[in-house]
Amino acid sequence: MPTAQILTIGDELLSGDTVNTNLAYLGERCRRLGFEVVRALSVRDRIPEIVAAVGDVAVDLCLVSGGLGPTSDDLTAEAVALAAGVPLVRDAASEAAIAAMFASFGRPMPDINRKQADLPAGCDVLPNPVGTAPGFAASLPRGTYVACMPGVPREMKKMMAEQVEPRLRRRFALPDIPRRVYRLIGRGESAVAVEVEPILAAARARSPGLAAVYLHYRAATPQVLLILEALAGEGGARATEEELRSFDAPFQAALRSSLYGIGEAELEVRVLAACRRAGLTLATAESCTGGQVAARLTAVAGASDVFAGGVVAYANSVKTGILGVSEDSLAGHGAVSEPVAREMAEGARRALGADLAVAITGIAGPGGGTPEKPVGTVDFAVADAETCTHKRVQLWGDRALIQHTAGIVALKLVWDRLVARGLAQVEELDG
Amino acid sequence: MPTAQILTIGDELLSGDTVNTNLAYLGERCRRLGFEVVRALSVRDRIPEIVAAVGDVAVDLCLVSGGLGPTSDDLTAEAVALAAGVPLVRDAASEAAIAAMFASFGRPMPDINRKQADLPAGCDVLPNPVGTAPGFAASLPRGTYVACMPGVPREMKKMMAEQVEPRLRRRFALPDIPRRVYRLIGRGESAVAVEVEPILAAARARSPGLAAVYLHYRAATPQVLLILEALAGEGGARATEEELRSFDAPFQAALRSSLYGIGEAELEVRVLAACRRAGLTLATAESCTGGQVAARLTAVAGASDVFAGGVVAYANSVKTGILGVSEDSLAGHGAVSEPVAREMAEGARRALGADLAVAITGIAGPGGGTPEKPVGTVDFAVADAETCTHKRVQLWGDRALIQHTAGIVALKLVWDRLVARGLAQVEELDG
Repeated sequence: MPTAQILTIGDELLSGDTVNTNLAYLGERCRRLGFEVVRALSVRDRIPEIVAAVGDVAVDLCLVSGGLGPTSDDLTAEAVALAAGVPLVRDAASEAAIAAMFASFGRPMPDINRKQADLPAGCDVLPNPVGTAPGFAASLPRGTYVACMPGVPREMKKMMAEQVEPRLRRRFALPDIPRRVYRLIGRGESAVAVEVEPILAAARARSPGLAAVYLHYRAATPQVLLILEALAGEGGARATEEELRSFDAPFQAALRSSLYGIGEAELEVRVLAACRRAGLTLATAESCTGGQVAARLTAVAGASDVFAGGVVAYANSVKTGILGVSEDSLAGHGAVSEPVAREMAEGARRALGADLAVAITGIAGPGGGTPEKPVGTVDFAVADAETCTHKRVQLWGDRALIQHTAGIVALKLVWDRLVARGLAQVEELDG
Repeated sequence: MPTAQILTIGDELLSGDTVNTNLAYLGERCRRLGFEVVRALSVRDRIPEIVAAVGDVAVDLCLVSGGLGPTSDDLTAEAVALAAGVPLVRDAASEAAIAAMFASFGRPMPDINRKQADLPAGCDVLPNPVGTAPGFAASLPRGTYVACMPGVPREMKKMMAEQVEPRLRRRFALPDIPRRVYRLIGRGESAVAVEVEPILAAARARSPGLAAVYLHYRAATPQVLLILEALAGEGGARATEEELRSFDAPFQAALRSSLYGIGEAELEVRVLAACRRAGLTLATAESCTGGQVAARLTAVAGASDVFAGGVVAYANSVKTGILGVSEDSLAGHGAVSEPVAREMAEGARRALGADLAVAITGIAGPGGGTPEKPVGTVDFAVADAETCTHKRVQLWGDRALIQHTAGIVALKLVWDRLVARGLAQVEELDG
C-alpha cells in the first residue's frame, strides 16, 4: 500500500484559531483511495519549516493544504520549489485566471495577487474554479509526489476531488476499493462489535478477499457507523462489492432495529425520503431539544415538501397555548412526562396540519433534575393518524450532548414508526 | 518565548475517523500560557513513530494526547519511557484509582486495565478523576518536558487545566498574559483591520508593552473576533490589563454597532442576559433557518426564563395558521418579503405571548432563487411592543452557510434592538 503524509500549513492551525478539519478530510480521502497515511504534520508559515516537512519523510505522496494566498506569509510555492530544486516561474494561464476571477466580481486584480501565479517550474498546475489560488503538483528528487491545495476547505475539497484524485488514480494505478457503510443508532460500539465480529470472522474463511476485509467503527453518540473496506489481501485479492453486500442479511438479523441504513445518507435524509414516498408530511414539537430536530430536517435541501414546520414549546404556556397540552397533565405529571409528550405530538399534528409528528420533552440540565427525573430524562412521542407511541430514555452527558442525542433519537423514533407501518426499510442510499 | 510541540497519537486521527479537535484546544492553551507552538504532529499507534516524534525536535515542551488506553495499540507510556531511557513501572496509586473507578460503576476491573498504571519510572503522575487513564509528565534527556494526557477530549481538557497548566506555570515561571477579546458581527476581517490597525499602530508608541501587543483575528462567518494579547516586548515589558482596556473606547468609536461585546461570552448569552435584566421574554419565528435560532438560544443553560419558544413556519400554511400571516401578503409579495417577515414577527409575539420576537424568512437554496430574489436573500423582522423593524440581507454561500449566517444575523438584530432601547450595551462578559 502506498504511503502518504498530510501537511497542513498555517500559524492559525497551531495557535488554536482554526480547527484542522482539512486533516480529517484528506485522511479519509487517502484511506479511500488506498494510501496509508503514516504522519500528519502542521507547521508555521516559515520556509525552512515547510521545506523540512515536505522533504524529511520518505512517503509516496505528500498532500499539502494552505499557504497559497497572496500575502507575505503565504510561502508554500516557494518552499516546495526549494525542496524540488527548481525556480519559481510565473504561470501565465494562472495569472489570467486570477484576473478573470477578480473581473467577475467587478474588481481590478490587486498587484499582490499576481504572486499566486508564481509556481515551481515544471509543475502540474491545478486550476481552482472557486478561488484565486491555483494549486500544483510536482515530484521531489527523492520520489515523493507532492500535491499542494488551498487551505480554504471549500476550495481544497473541490481541488482534491476534481484535480488531485484523478491524477493519483492514474499515477499510482489505484484500484477501486469496495466499501460498505452500515448505520446504527441504539447500540454502543462494543455492543455492535459483539454482534458483527463473529459474523465477519466466519466469513473470512470464505475467500482471500474476505479474509482481508478491514472493519472499522466511527462512533459519534448516539450513532455508530460500521465500515467495511475491501483492502487487498494475499496475492492482491480483494473482496468484491457482492461479497460485501453478503453481510447485509446477517448484520440486519444480528443488529435488528438499531441498523437503519446502508450508505452515506444521514438519518434525516432517509426519514424525509420515506415520508415523501409515502406522501406524508412531518412536524415537530420540541422542548428540551429547542429546535434542533427541525434544524436537522431543514438542513436537507428540498425538505419543504415533507416538513411542514415545528413548535419549540419551551415555556409551558406555549405547550398549552399552541399545542393544546392540558393544564392537568402539566400539573399532575410535570412537563417531562408521558402524557405531556403524547399531547405535544398530537397537538403538533393538529396545529401544524401534518400527518406525522414527533415530540421531545426532557431535562437537558445542568439544573432541573430530581431523584425521579434526573438530568438526561427525556420523553418522546410519535403521533400519526393511527396511533401515538411513547418512549422514555435516560441520556448521559452535558447539556449539549443530551440535546444533540435527544434530537437524533427523536428522528430514529420517527424512522421506527415508518418501518412499523411498512413505509421505510433498511436500504442503500448515498449523499 | 518557550517553544512547544503538540503530538496527537492515534490511527483514527490519520484515517479521517476523528477530527483532531485536541490540536486546536492545546494550541490555544499553549498560546495563552506563553508558548510558541512550532509544530503539530499526528502519528500512528506505533512505538518507533511515537519515539521519533517525541525525541526528534528541539522544543521546551511536548504536549501529547492519546494512546493511554488499555488495549494493545495504546503505546504512549512505553514509547515515552524508551525516549526517556527509563523502564516502565507499575504505579500502585494509579492502579488503585483505576480499580476504584470500576468499583464506582459496580464492575470489577478487567485485567487489561492494569496496564494503564504502567508508567515511565520517575515520572510525575497526573491523576484523571473522570477516566481510567492516568497521565504523566517527564523530562527527556535533551531537556524537553513531556506531558502525556488521554485522547478523550473531556478527560484531556480537565487534565490540562487542573494538572498540566499549574506545573507549566511553575516550571517555566510563566507570567499572566493579559488579553482582550472584541466580538464583531457585520464587518469582514479586512474591514475590521482597516479600522483597528491605525489605532493600534498609534498606541504602540505609548509604551514598550503596547509596542509588543499582538493582534489577531479569528473569523467565522459572519463573526469576527479581534484578540489583543500582551506579549512581552523589549526588556520583557508587557501591556497591562488597563492598557488593553484603553482600546475599548476608540475601537467602539471606529467599529460602531458591529462591535457587540468584549470577552468570551457568545452573542446568545448576551441577548438572554439583557432580556433577563430588562424582564423581557423572547420568541422566534423561523422559516429558512428552520429552528437554528431557537436551538442556539436553548443551548444556553437557563434560557427558559427568557425564551418562551418558537415556531418553525416552513410551510405557508403554518405561517398563516399559527402566526397569522395574511394570504394577501404571501400571494402579493411572496414568502420571502418584508410584509411576511413583519407579520411573522408580530404573529410570533402574539402566538407565543412574548415581549420580543424575531422572524427570519429567506431562500437558503440550492433551489428557489429568482433574478429578483436570488439564493441568499433573507428578510428579518424584530417586533416588540413599540415597533417592528425590518432588514433585508443578501447572504452568500451554500445552504448550510446561509442558514448558519442568517441565524446569527437574527440574534444580532435582536441585540441591536435592545441597544436602541437602551437595554443592552457593549460590556465585558466571559463564559
